[in-house]
Amino acid sequence: MNRESFAAGERLVSPAYVRQGCEARRSHEHLIRQLLEKGKCPEDGWDESTLELFLHELAIMDSNNFLGNCGVGEREGRVASSLVARRHYRFIHGIGRSGDIAAVQPKAAGSSLLNKITNSLVLDIIKLAGVHTVANCFVVPVATGMSLTLCFLTLRHKRPKAKYIIWPRIDQKSCFKSMITAGFEPVVIENVLEGDELRTDLKAVETKLQELGPDNVLCIHSTTSCFAPRVPDRLEELAVICANYDIPHIVNNAYGVQSSKCMHLIQQGARVGRIDAFVQSLDKNFMVPVGGAIIAGFNDAFIQEISKMYPGRASASPSLDILITLLSLGSNGYKKLLKERKELFSYLSNQLKKLSEAYNERLLHTPRNPISLAVTLKTLDEYHDKAVTQLGSMLFTRQVSGARVVPLGSVQTVSGYTFRGFMSHTNNYPCAYLNAASAIGMKMQDVDLFVKRLDKCLKTVRKVQNKDSDVSGVDNYDKTEDVDIEEMALKLDNNVLLDTYKDASS
Amino acid sequence: MNRESFAAGERLVSPAYVRQGCEARRSHEHLIRQLLEKGKCPEDGWDESTLELFLHELAIMDSNNFLGNCGVGEREGRVASSLVARRHYRFIHGIGRSGDIAAVQPKAAGSSLLNKITNSLVLDIIKLAGVHTVANCFVVPVATGMSLTLCFLTLRHKRPKAKYIIWPRIDQKSCFKSMITAGFEPVVIENVLEGDELRTDLKAVETKLQELGPDNVLCIHSTTSCFAPRVPDRLEELAVICANYDIPHIVNNAYGVQSSKCMHLIQQGARVGRIDAFVQSLDKNFMVPVGGAIIAGFNDAFIQEISKMYPGRASASPSLDILITLLSLGSNGYKKLLKERKELFSYLSNQLKKLSEAYNERLLHTPRNPISLAVTLKTLDEYHDKAVTQLGSMLFTRQVSGARVVPLGSVQTVSGYTFRGFMSHTNNYPCAYLNAASAIGMKMQDVDLFVKRLDKCLKTVRKVQNKDSDVSGVDNYDKTEDVDIEEMALKLDNNVLLDTYKDASS
Amino acid sequence: MNRESFAAGERLVSPAYVRQGCEARRSHEHLIRQLLEKGKCPEDGWDESTLELFLHELAIMDSNNFLGNCGVGEREGRVASSLVARRHYRFIHGIGRSGDIAAVQPKAAGSSLLNKITNSLVLDIIKLAGVHTVANCFVVPVATGMSLTLCFLTLRHKRPKAKYIIWPRIDQKSCFKSMITAGFEPVVIENVLEGDELRTDLKAVETKLQELGPDNVLCIHSTTSCFAPRVPDRLEELAVICANYDIPHIVNNAYGVQSSKCMHLIQQGARVGRIDAFVQSLDKNFMVPVGGAIIAGFNDAFIQEISKMYPGRASASPSLDILITLLSLGSNGYKKLLKERKELFSYLSNQLKKLSEAYNERLLHTPRNPISLAVTLKTLDEYHDKAVTQLGSMLFTRQVSGARVVPLGSVQTVSGYTFRGFMSHTNNYPCAYLNAASAIGMKMQDVDLFVKRLDKCLKTVRKVQNKDSDVSGVDNYDKTEDVDIEEMALKLDNNVLLDTYKDASS
Amino acid sequence: MNRESFAAGERLVSPAYVRQGCEARRSHEHLIRQLLEKGKCPEDGWDESTLELFLHELAIMDSNNFLGNCGVGEREGRVASSLVARRHYRFIHGIGRSGDIAAVQPKAAGSSLLNKITNSLVLDIIKLAGVHTVANCFVVPVATGMSLTLCFLTLRHKRPKAKYIIWPRIDQKSCFKSMITAGFEPVVIENVLEGDELRTDLKAVETKLQELGPDNVLCIHSTTSCFAPRVPDRLEELAVICANYDIPHIVNNAYGVQSSKCMHLIQQGARVGRIDAFVQSLDKNFMVPVGGAIIAGFNDAFIQEISKMYPGRASASPSLDILITLLSLGSNGYKKLLKERKELFSYLSNQLKKLSEAYNERLLHTPRNPISLAVTLKTLDEYHDKAVTQLGSMLFTRQVSGARVVPLGSVQTVSGYTFRGFMSHTNNYPCAYLNAASAIGMKMQDVDLFVKRLDKCLKTVRKVQNKDSDVSGVDNYDKTEDVDIEEMALKLDNNVLLDTYKDASS
Repeated sequence: MNRESFAAGERLVSPAYVRQGCEARRSHEHLIRQLLEKGKCPEDGWDESTLELFLHELAIMDSNNFLGNCGVGEREGRVASSLVARRHYRFIHGIGRSGDIAAVQPKAAGSSLLNKITNSLVLDIIKLAGVHTVANCFVVPVATGMSLTLCFLTLRHKRPKAKYIIWPRIDQKSCFKSMITAGFEPVVIENVLEGDELRTDLKAVETKLQELGPDNVLCIHSTTSCFAPRVPDRLEELAVICANYDIPHIVNNAYGVQSSKCMHLIQQGARVGRIDAFVQSLDKNFMVPVGGAIIAGFNDAFIQEISKMYPGRASASPSLDILITLLSLGSNGYKKLLKERKELFSYLSNQLKKLSEAYNERLLHTPRNPISLAVTLKTLDEYHDKAVTQLGSMLFTRQVSGARVVPLGSVQTVSGYTFRGFMSHTNNYPCAYLNAASAIGMKMQDVDLFVKRLDKCLKTVRKVQNKDSDVSGVDNYDKTEDVDIEEMALKLDNNVLLDTYKDASS
Repeated sequence: MNRESFAAGERLVSPAYVRQGCEARRSHEHLIRQLLEKGKCPEDGWDESTLELFLHELAIMDSNNFLGNCGVGEREGRVASSLVARRHYRFIHGIGRSGDIAAVQPKAAGSSLLNKITNSLVLDIIKLAGVHTVANCFVVPVATGMSLTLCFLTLRHKRPKAKYIIWPRIDQKSCFKSMITAGFEPVVIENVLEGDELRTDLKAVETKLQELGPDNVLCIHSTTSCFAPRVPDRLEELAVICANYDIPHIVNNAYGVQSSKCMHLIQQGARVGRIDAFVQSLDKNFMVPVGGAIIAGFNDAFIQEISKMYPGRASASPSLDILITLLSLGSNGYKKLLKERKELFSYLSNQLKKLSEAYNERLLHTPRNPISLAVTLKTLDEYHDKAVTQLGSMLFTRQVSGARVVPLGSVQTVSGYTFRGFMSHTNNYPCAYLNAASAIGMKMQDVDLFVKRLDKCLKTVRKVQNKDSDVSGVDNYDKTEDVDIEEMALKLDNNVLLDTYKDASS
Repeated sequence: MNRESFAAGERLVSPAYVRQGCEARRSHEHLIRQLLEKGKCPEDGWDESTLELFLHELAIMDSNNFLGNCGVGEREGRVASSLVARRHYRFIHGIGRSGDIAAVQPKAAGSSLLNKITNSLVLDIIKLAGVHTVANCFVVPVATGMSLTLCFLTLRHKRPKAKYIIWPRIDQKSCFKSMITAGFEPVVIENVLEGDELRTDLKAVETKLQELGPDNVLCIHSTTSCFAPRVPDRLEELAVICANYDIPHIVNNAYGVQSSKCMHLIQQGARVGRIDAFVQSLDKNFMVPVGGAIIAGFNDAFIQEISKMYPGRASASPSLDILITLLSLGSNGYKKLLKERKELFSYLSNQLKKLSEAYNERLLHTPRNPISLAVTLKTLDEYHDKAVTQLGSMLFTRQVSGARVVPLGSVQTVSGYTFRGFMSHTNNYPCAYLNAASAIGMKMQDVDLFVKRLDKCLKTVRKVQNKDSDVSGVDNYDKTEDVDIEEMALKLDNNVLLDTYKDASS
Repeated sequence: MNRESFAAGERLVSPAYVRQGCEARRSHEHLIRQLLEKGKCPEDGWDESTLELFLHELAIMDSNNFLGNCGVGEREGRVASSLVARRHYRFIHGIGRSGDIAAVQPKAAGSSLLNKITNSLVLDIIKLAGVHTVANCFVVPVATGMSLTLCFLTLRHKRPKAKYIIWPRIDQKSCFKSMITAGFEPVVIENVLEGDELRTDLKAVETKLQELGPDNVLCIHSTTSCFAPRVPDRLEELAVICANYDIPHIVNNAYGVQSSKCMHLIQQGARVGRIDAFVQSLDKNFMVPVGGAIIAGFNDAFIQEISKMYPGRASASPSLDILITLLSLGSNGYKKLLKERKELFSYLSNQLKKLSEAYNERLLHTPRNPISLAVTLKTLDEYHDKAVTQLGSMLFTRQVSGARVVPLGSVQTVSGYTFRGFMSHTNNYPCAYLNAASAIGMKMQDVDLFVKRLDKCLKTVRKVQNKDSDVSGVDNYDKTEDVDIEEMALKLDNNVLLDTYKDASS
């Protein structure tokens, strides 16, 4: 409503009241102005009414929402379904142009602003989360794996001779495939066992580098966030090696934004050595739907090169999600989530310690992993070779999601490469174990339910095992309210079961 | 977004594009301004994006949406459920104040504007629909019956001696109860049969008036829209009688806005005689959810008196619905709906004529009823005394809604008054019949499906009847895909069935 | 999705996963089944996904959502605007039938279920809130005032001779007008001052009753929730009088559900004497939009009579709002809100005590009022006769809503009755004062902001007054960031200002 | 609601009505079952209520919506903002797994079903649109350019020696960059002029192929949909060459699904020769937001290989959009859109013919291009060298979107490759021209407005030019209501202007 509309309003109802309403409107507008001028995440989250006003204002700046527009092109932001238009707040043109995913679209000033502001907010949050000297970043509407591929494809143009990527082993398929898809040959560096922890074998990295010849190596591809007992790579030392050999360094920081330790490692790596880009998932760090990632780095030009490598326009949906989320939370809201995660990590750790000891197992000592924990399943594994697998299946059917059991001796072939001990990041970890993580957004109730259900499952598996693994004996023991679900689980086809836990590593 | 925000936006993306977006915004604002300044229904409907912008702008003028508000009263527009807040576009304060349902609320400038504009738009539409000299009107969040009660309660204060309301019979419970609830004694004037039509007995009205003494009569309560073979009351003549005897006249125009004939009658009545208020349903005339009505009249002061009679604030929900609907349709959209209704009335009439003749029945000749039609069920009634009822039940279970069968001899007692021949508006209509109407929003597909299903049902009922009403014989005849539904229908408890058709008259 | 759909799903993705999803679905369905079977408010609130599933399931049972429906009536639940349809979750048919607002609609099984369940849930909550022996209740889509009118109109039929309603004075217009609208003559019983409190004059009530003759009295109309220093009526004693004289008793419990004290009074009144119906606002007690009320009572038959008095169908919107709200909150959520309200009442009381003493004023001692508080404005009033009014205006423009100032000597005429000392419930309260209330949904932040702003305003008013009420002197004193708003306030037209505070009493 | 719930419902309202509602529910379920069993696009579009029921049912099968779920992993589908959750219908887990974007997720049976069904529907539609023998396809949440890159990256593993991609020139940046990003060297084949049309130089293709050596060529990358006067590539002949030389063939069918001609070319190409994959945009063909594409092909295994090449999970948002859209439209709705597009193409063609002749220009004769048209701007170009550019700018500021002017002699460097005559698909097209297209979703009103505005602009430009290009003279000529916009346009910075039209080619 403009001045004339307010004046007309004053004639309909009392001027004093309209003026009061008009005054109130200004406070919404003030927030919007602050955002546009500073490009920073507001400290306090916005309420829905400011947020929707803002999105609405942006959307009507796109040509598909012009009342007088006539379109005679082949992409005019037309929408067939009003449900679809509404769920996208009428942003239809996506982001970017053929030349650059960060570029401005003449037809869509609103979407372009949305894109710019989102990237600006995200940059602010990455600094706040610990990487203070980050130079530039952008949201890309593909998940972590594809974003890594994009980084490698960009590097190819700078290093035409390179064929190899040096990669300290982490048993997660996407990041492995990201190299294959980009057309490079991953050179796997096995981890070394230090206490319970699996850590980067720095010497092996350097040896391999010399062996292959630096010019033939596209980059080192390291990892921060990972399942225990693996711990974040020794980023500082790797960054120094990269600097020394003048080799690019790409960091897979998939769900590391939520951990100050992971972010600190990146900050330190960049300070003492070389990090070209670090990639993080939107969904895993910011509680939005799957499908977006942030590519960030310390060199503005290189990040721009990556954004220019993306051919064509792209979905605005992940940008919209993260924008809404950050504006709703405010930086204080996000910090609160980070704090709660950290506290729940301690809580989960304590609860698992207690439970494991009650079953003659132990919590692996992995102090360098700030997110994931592992509990041994030794005694279970000794009972019966399928007991570990059964435990996984039982947890799944009891609606425990995200826990994964890691049996010994699993072998998996990914894109032609064979991994022994797959899921454990090493060929021969000393024992089977179970993983659980404290990730952003977790609630204390999740921990309590998990520990309770795990306790029940462990009890049940042992009873079954004690009966000589007689699965048909399931019907005999102490009935609980969920025995039927459990039965179902035990009778599930083996392939399905295996499929189930393996998911944890994908 | 204000000027500073746009300026900031221009620094983020190209000024030319932001300016283009800003320009586009103006066209939305222009529409809003026009609305507020003129208070008329726009000719062309608004698109959703203008509409939602407008509602959003209004809502943030209410104190419950002030970012800095602090509430220390007992009604602050707080909402517990965000689903509820959203579905009301965050208008929580309702409309009106204790003194007057049309009054402005200091705490809620937005809701107050919404209320004023809605009433203004509705006034415009009533003029457009044919009552050109209407002086004032308001939306009241109660349905037609309660609105009539409100009119009668207001009149009570002007005519303290009055005890009776003269009411040409129409067999619809709500309007009858509206008089009872207001504490008056309805004086039923039986209709006279002219050809097939049932019309107002003017002589009886005048005789009764003289008999009771004008001072003892609160008002004449007449009706426009009704089921055939009853036709709209002779409004002109009644209005003249009211003028002559100085008696108020309240018109129940329930679903008459959609018919130019009904509106013309009101306009004429007011021109030549006296009409104090006419009441119309929102849902039946404007395709919104049940729950609101419009009270309109030719004397501004009297309409204001009624609005001041409503004790306390009231729901804004019906006002919001009609506002959204009228702005979406525009006056052109509404006119188009009126035109289509009229055309479908002819179509329905023709189709029913054909069908009835095929069954040796006939379409009653009721040219004065512009909405409802009636087809005799003589031959059916002769077969078996429950055949008419069965037909109604079968139509119901076949998802024909709104058709109603009127058997002979139905007797009903409403609030202590006994009506013989209930549903037929007279004690002894010559034959049983079936009603169907062409109301606003109907589609040609409705007519076609109805006629097809009616045809099938008539066939089936006859077959069943031919078997000496042997309901168990249902299984024997020609199977169609919906025989099971039909069986169910035939086995339904009688009370339920009766209940079903009687609904049509409520 | 039915069994066949799930089977088809199992062929598309793994059976184990579909089965898991199917299992999960059952837990939603279980909640729905519990609700339908028990008709009680669930202890824990439902999440949005269960809630929307439930509403969706209900809606598709209404004929307007039948895929194969054909409508040939005049009210078929057609909707012109998809925005409107969506915001009502496609419930278009409203509730009730002409005979009874609680009746079932054949065309709308879903809306009918919604209505029944809502009434059942609301009954459960009224018991939980303290009136354990309530027999029946229903949600009516009109606010408190109109609901009271409906009660009086129903009583009229039972007491045809009655002309008067005995009403212990409470200065709130709606409840006064509810009697006028119903056509009765209110007999105002002035309150008596006991300490700071204004209480029911029982002797005057009984004397008046005898004077008028019980048969001429429709009922006693008492009040629980009210602004301090008035306190809830002596319900027990009034109920005993009603029982003794065989006179109906209607209680205005507008915002009393939120207070265990008010509810206890009603429960006790019904136990020892007679209470026919008690009426409460939906918005004030349950944080939903304005527009609905609950009429409840201890005699099932009488409550049904009232529901049958409502002529015609009515809006389902208030029922839908309260249903969503109660299912979202669960009884535990509602209890939590009640508890917080009580705690904030103490907090507000303490803060106001401190502040008032700092200004040589005092918190009135009104221990019997569980919701509203009053702080004297004696010293302010002595400065200048408009100072109290100015304070009210300043609070308004500073976005303090719900606080109201009560100057001495205000006279108001409502529907022809003149009230001296209007807003203070008595002709001559000893001093001017300010009201604030702790109502459900209030936050500690509201209290803190209010006290802070009140402090500032009091300071400012005194300064202005010290300058001999020289309003033009406003510019001279200590500038604060909101001086301009305040100026605006001071320059506001007097009528507007008066209007503003008077709103608090409407 | 399950059986027990319905039974409980029958006790609350009449069994007959509940049963009717229950019956009605079955028709929704029937549609869902049909969809799941047949996997085909329904003929008639679904209404919103069936659609939302379906999405709701799917969503509650995902673990993040399990009422009893406890999550202890790092990706549990948690959502911070309820706005975000709602807009995705609570589908949070995205689609695919690390191994395959088409794979099933154990944690998300609902999302997995959504993905499978969407791909199945899309396959059905591609057949319906003319490529009857397509074997497999999948929706990928990246736009056309990136999808092409994905195809090339997949081919790399099959043809390790290949370095070149043979590409008949089309002046659109994304498809050019798709090759660069994938790390290949585009070999540009200039088009030949036949009449007004620019067509594939088959001889040059074959010569180049022999020259480079087939093993060094990754594939031929051809194009169907393009701006006139270029016409679709000679797919049949290219496909035969590919078959003869055993070289893959990837077709960029960006907005070709909407044209039966383009689809026919692909079908024919596959019949007589070799086509490995064809890629189409979701937004350009199906009126959904930007961000998705369909990769389709005639060899099931190869399409699966591509889907397995995508590293990691991905956004479900484009799949959800197309699913909603196709279910809303039904195949009949989509066919209707195709038919209307074709008709509007004729209409646009006629209107442009008339207009161009009035200005001594002509519509280029390009019968082989079924979507795009071109009108010469010869006379304009002769007036002044900036006139063509000015026309483009004026159209832009008059809210004509999608029209693009192509001046002579534009040179552009893309990723190091220099294109002379950029935007015209050839080094030296005989004249400047203007493009307009009839794309799916266009309305007759678009054409009319466009032609009217173009007429006005042409008039204005000529007048300005006649005044010796005196831009300051703008103020002097015949004032129209939009002169100010136009001025703004003329004063726009040159870079911005150029930017604007060039957008049309990106």
